[in-house]
Amino acid sequence: MSEYIDHDSTGQSIGLVTKHTFTFGESGQGISLDSGRSLGPVKLAYETCGTLNSDKSNAILICHALTGDSHMAGYYSEDDPKPGWWDIMVGPGKPLDTDKYFFICSNVIGGCMGSTGPVSTNPETDKPYGTAFPVVTIGDMVQCQRHLIDHLGIDKLLAVVGGSVGGMQVLEWSVRYPERVRAALPLATTTKHSAQAIAFNEVARQAIMADPKWNKGDYYESGRPEHGLAVARMVGHITYLSDESMRHKFDRRLQDRVELSFDFEADFQVESYLRYQGNKFVDRFDANSFLYLTKAADYFNLENTYGDGSLVAAFSRASCRYLVISFTSDWLYPTYQSKTMVKAMKKNGLNVSFCEIEAPWGHDAFLLPNDRLNGLLTGFLDRVTADCGIGGAQ
Amino acid sequence: MSEYIDHDSTGQSIGLVTKHTFTFGESGQGISLDSGRSLGPVKLAYETCGTLNSDKSNAILICHALTGDSHMAGYYSEDDPKPGWWDIMVGPGKPLDTDKYFFICSNVIGGCMGSTGPVSTNPETDKPYGTAFPVVTIGDMVQCQRHLIDHLGIDKLLAVVGGSVGGMQVLEWSVRYPERVRAALPLATTTKHSAQAIAFNEVARQAIMADPKWNKGDYYESGRPEHGLAVARMVGHITYLSDESMRHKFDRRLQDRVELSFDFEADFQVESYLRYQGNKFVDRFDANSFLYLTKAADYFNLENTYGDGSLVAAFSRASCRYLVISFTSDWLYPTYQSKTMVKAMKKNGLNVSFCEIEAPWGHDAFLLPNDRLNGLLTGFLDRVTADCGIGGAQ
Repeated sequence: MSEYIDHDSTGQSIGLVTKHTFTFGESGQGISLDSGRSLGPVKLAYETCGTLNSDKSNAILICHALTGDSHMAGYYSEDDPKPGWWDIMVGPGKPLDTDKYFFICSNVIGGCMGSTGPVSTNPETDKPYGTAFPVVTIGDMVQCQRHLIDHLGIDKLLAVVGGSVGGMQVLEWSVRYPERVRAALPLATTTKHSAQAIAFNEVARQAIMADPKWNKGDYYESGRPEHGLAVARMVGHITYLSDESMRHKFDRRLQDRVELSFDFEADFQVESYLRYQGNKFVDRFDANSFLYLTKAADYFNLENTYGDGSLVAAFSRASCRYLVISFTSDWLYPTYQSKTMVKAMKKNGLNVSFCEIEAPWGHDAFLLPNDRLNGLLTGFLDRVTADCGIGGAQ
Repeated sequence: MSEYIDHDSTGQSIGLVTKHTFTFGESGQGISLDSGRSLGPVKLAYETCGTLNSDKSNAILICHALTGDSHMAGYYSEDDPKPGWWDIMVGPGKPLDTDKYFFICSNVIGGCMGSTGPVSTNPETDKPYGTAFPVVTIGDMVQCQRHLIDHLGIDKLLAVVGGSVGGMQVLEWSVRYPERVRAALPLATTTKHSAQAIAFNEVARQAIMADPKWNKGDYYESGRPEHGLAVARMVGHITYLSDESMRHKFDRRLQDRVELSFDFEADFQVESYLRYQGNKFVDRFDANSFLYLTKAADYFNLENTYGDGSLVAAFSRASCRYLVISFTSDWLYPTYQSKTMVKAMKKNGLNVSFCEIEAPWGHDAFLLPNDRLNGLLTGFLDRVTADCGIGGAQ
């Protein structure tokens, strides 16, 4: 979920990309949300890469994680210093191969990267929504993505792929719109948050709401709750790494000093890293969006929403094939949670591949270079393409 | 470290206890701290129970965890609703048996439960120290406890026992004052914080320091940083439990409602629990103390302080026997950290018993009723007593 991990992007880039927007729900009551409330108009920021084939059968939707955006790969300009968040994965000859497939990635609603969210203008007041924005669900995000897919004239997605909260959207797609998805690739994810995962999100939310500048969400003129948001991000960051990866990366090494300071400056590199991540995040993200997106993740509960408490019943709605991947050191969404979903899928006779990848890097492993992950994605998509008789872009 | 866990205290109580104070370092420069700074006068709040035998050889020092206090067991008054934090363990016929031993427990310096800390009056300004209080170490805490033991006329402690940050003090005692300790019982602890443990503490500190009311530690007249401290406590609480224990205790059960609220109230019991714990903590604890005590825990590094980077060298100073105990679900100080210390002790030919206790309750397991833990403590202390020819109180 820390989509902006520093790593060297490898392989060929897709080059320049453009952010588009698509607006819907402009007339009448707007779209109906899972809460019963309505929202409209809704704008989605999205990007695409690769070429859609003539029968529009090679489209793959990429779902971003908690604080990500539509910028999955490539650069916005010649002097853009940083490519999209999954540039190592999406490009010519890469596991998500733009020579073969057409990729779509949109910013989720509730977000702050171009799609409608709490920072957007509330048409009823002509001011930012703030906490007047309705609480949205993973299902609402996916409903909006479906509007986009309709708009692009795509009847059936070849695949939906994403990690973490993106993986929740993948699972939601497969159950909410089974007729629209051939294959689903949920990575490092869960069908419902554990109490511990909710707890971490709640602490992060409390950190934001404890900041007096949060001002009940009404801070767009008075100044943003930067301190609270930075602390919230720091909490998250610990859960994206692992005990082992933090030991490798930082251990107890000191930051810019040879002895302990005996004050409250950042003595240790890990402290300095967290402060840096917190402060950097504040520049690019909206505190209210963070509240809404973590709440959506906490609310996600596939078995309750679609199976009346039974995950097997929920997956009885699905018809796609699945590639489920977990990572050994992911303690935010541990492997046992992936195994639970795989079992429920299999009980429905669904075609499921599952792999737990050995990786020390914690939850963030799905964003890092990993040959095993690359091979699994490539092989799975090749098989789906072959079995379905899908033609490539050329 | 959440010393105030709700549980039924079992067995006979020691009854009423009194909090005492002992002041030292009044003359000259005060005591010398590990930072090189000095501190004085130093007051320690302490309590005792059981009866010291004639040759003062049956004294056991109990070291409290991060935010604990000297009130290990018993009640302050007839209508006191709550006993001390380790009442299940300390009392007549209990594993820490007041019929046999004399127990001492003092509040650590840097704390806020009666011992000198940032809330105490700075003799140079006649105002509370705030962040003018020197950063103290586990070693400094133990040095002060040694002054208390001297004051009580005890030449050699039969044992030092404590869990978590209390366990760090136990380890420090055994290496700093080897001639003063016959047996050491470090429970659920570590010889140094991992990067992850430092990270959690740093987030907690940042939550406090991000609260504008913290005011660089100068808030005793202007009003306390309650919001920041509550968030800090919430972070800690997650690390004291485990994924499994949180699932057992809360799972995804809703709080006082049958459906999701679709707002930012506490939907889930785990959210409500954390908010409650955070708010309750604010009533009894000082935010600056929290900064100092977490820093002391982060600084603790037995191998660097006493072994020039070698834990084996550090324990070469020790001469006591050890009972080291870890808990399977403790992910704050996982068993591998206890195994590391046991290995280093054994390389020095020390008499070490080690047990990893199967318990789902996370780090807090050492504070909860556990027959296995009880049996190990009782048996170990019986053996030490017999081997050393120690007479009981009677």
